[in-house]
Amino acid sequence: MKTLEQRLTWCASFVEEALERQLSANILLMESPMTQAMRYAVLRGGKRIRAFLTIEFCCMFGGIPEDAADYACAMEMVHGYSLVHDDLPCMDNDDMRRGRPSCHKKFGETVALLAGDALLTQAFYCIGNHGTKESYNANSLAVQALSRCAGALGMCAGQQMDLAKDIQDYDALKMLHRLKTSALMEAACLLGYYAAKGIPNPDTEKKLEIYAQNVGLAFQIVDDLLDVNSTAEELGKPVGSDVKNGKCTVLKFLSQEEAFEEARRLSQESSALFAGYENSDSICQLPMYLLNRKK
Amino acid sequence: MKTLEQRLTWCASFVEEALERQLSANILLMESPMTQAMRYAVLRGGKRIRAFLTIEFCCMFGGIPEDAADYACAMEMVHGYSLVHDDLPCMDNDDMRRGRPSCHKKFGETVALLAGDALLTQAFYCIGNHGTKESYNANSLAVQALSRCAGALGMCAGQQMDLAKDIQDYDALKMLHRLKTSALMEAACLLGYYAAKGIPNPDTEKKLEIYAQNVGLAFQIVDDLLDVNSTAEELGKPVGSDVKNGKCTVLKFLSQEEAFEEARRLSQESSALFAGYENSDSICQLPMYLLNRKK
Repeated sequence: MKTLEQRLTWCASFVEEALERQLSANILLMESPMTQAMRYAVLRGGKRIRAFLTIEFCCMFGGIPEDAADYACAMEMVHGYSLVHDDLPCMDNDDMRRGRPSCHKKFGETVALLAGDALLTQAFYCIGNHGTKESYNANSLAVQALSRCAGALGMCAGQQMDLAKDIQDYDALKMLHRLKTSALMEAACLLGYYAAKGIPNPDTEKKLEIYAQNVGLAFQIVDDLLDVNSTAEELGKPVGSDVKNGKCTVLKFLSQEEAFEEARRLSQESSALFAGYENSDSICQLPMYLLNRKK
Repeated sequence: MKTLEQRLTWCASFVEEALERQLSANILLMESPMTQAMRYAVLRGGKRIRAFLTIEFCCMFGGIPEDAADYACAMEMVHGYSLVHDDLPCMDNDDMRRGRPSCHKKFGETVALLAGDALLTQAFYCIGNHGTKESYNANSLAVQALSRCAGALGMCAGQQMDLAKDIQDYDALKMLHRLKTSALMEAACLLGYYAAKGIPNPDTEKKLEIYAQNVGLAFQIVDDLLDVNSTAEELGKPVGSDVKNGKCTVLKFLSQEEAFEEARRLSQESSALFAGYENSDSICQLPMYLLNRKK
């Protein structure tokens, strides 16, 4: 029986290999600065939480990791594209990402913009080309979920809301995080379910949505807390950058104690949602793990 | 019996209405500068050649325009996103598009970037949510075709090639146009076929690919000729901008006469491809119509 940390490590390595294949010269048409930037933006990156959600929910619902590999790659590509575009000078203008130069610092703005576009498109390529004809139902559902959660009804709407810098109360901030962060996690959870089952189920989909909403909001609250309490070394980026950038954080509306208590409550609720399911250990443990993370 | 021009006019109005619905407040989550920019970039725009290809091929293969409406919207959204991102300062830095300010001149760079991202995502939403469960086969094929043709294996690779400004001969220029222009037209043709039939057919798909390749290349050759022979009033944008921007055009490798002859040959070949099919009038006439266009 693996611990959660062992599962996370295994899963990160599993999805890394899958991403290497999906972004290899065999798949992409030709080598170019764009394809290099695509790999730079996605490979060796991050905690792979979205891929983990896709793979673990697939396993919880009766599939195996291999069933979810393509969808997990799609999730990481969309996440990677969103970071590349968010870091651009006309957006957040961030020079560093995960302890190294952001994509446009490394490859220039033009190539970074293009690589982001190509990654977003390639995510749908991963889904569309998953499996055989028997997977078409699951693939169609996955395209529906990802396009809804990543675009003008989800993550892009969240980014627009963030840019408007007009968050007046905690409810508005929750809506922002729901769109900008939870929506993509929701897609990750749904894709895991579709990879295993291939059919819609409103009750399950609703539960997955609530799980993702809570985990996403708690994740952002912890992010806000880490930004004031951590060190640059631990975070891999400068601390206090939220305040410096005039970003609205949860600490505008709640004390640190209240914020952590809120994150703890959300994480516990998520943990309880799938407690009765077989093979749900990772899914039940993940929220508390993310709550107590140091970076 | 409608003439080609009447079909084009009818089709443009048909897809305009479909796009209005797909980008209405009912579909999008909330009104924002981003959603305004999405509509600005796509509505009342262009010749709708891609939508026309989707709708006409759907009709030629036994469908009706309504079968192809969602896919046609997807094509115009991807085309619209590509123009918005191409016009950005870090790309071609174009202030005008279709006789009015380009998207970032009107809404700012940040919103334009985001609106492009959201349009690309929304295109897959249009496909994914097309029809009922019976459409899942067609939708999966459509996602495969569009993601292949629009991303790192198609249009984005073409944009990268264009930016590299390293076109040494006519073969390289043809490859550039094949990727940057024909690929999306190929998706448009394939989507029309899938909307009608919902199943793959390698022979037909190959013919559609050749049709699109020829039409796309001829289209770009005519574009290059118009850029030196037309007026700003006719074009809706400054003439001679290709030369001014140091863009490699066909006139670097061919004389005007040779270039027009090449475009004529490609157009005639395309026209002949589907000559034996029922209801193929529009498809057979379109290439020569595009060849002789004045803008």
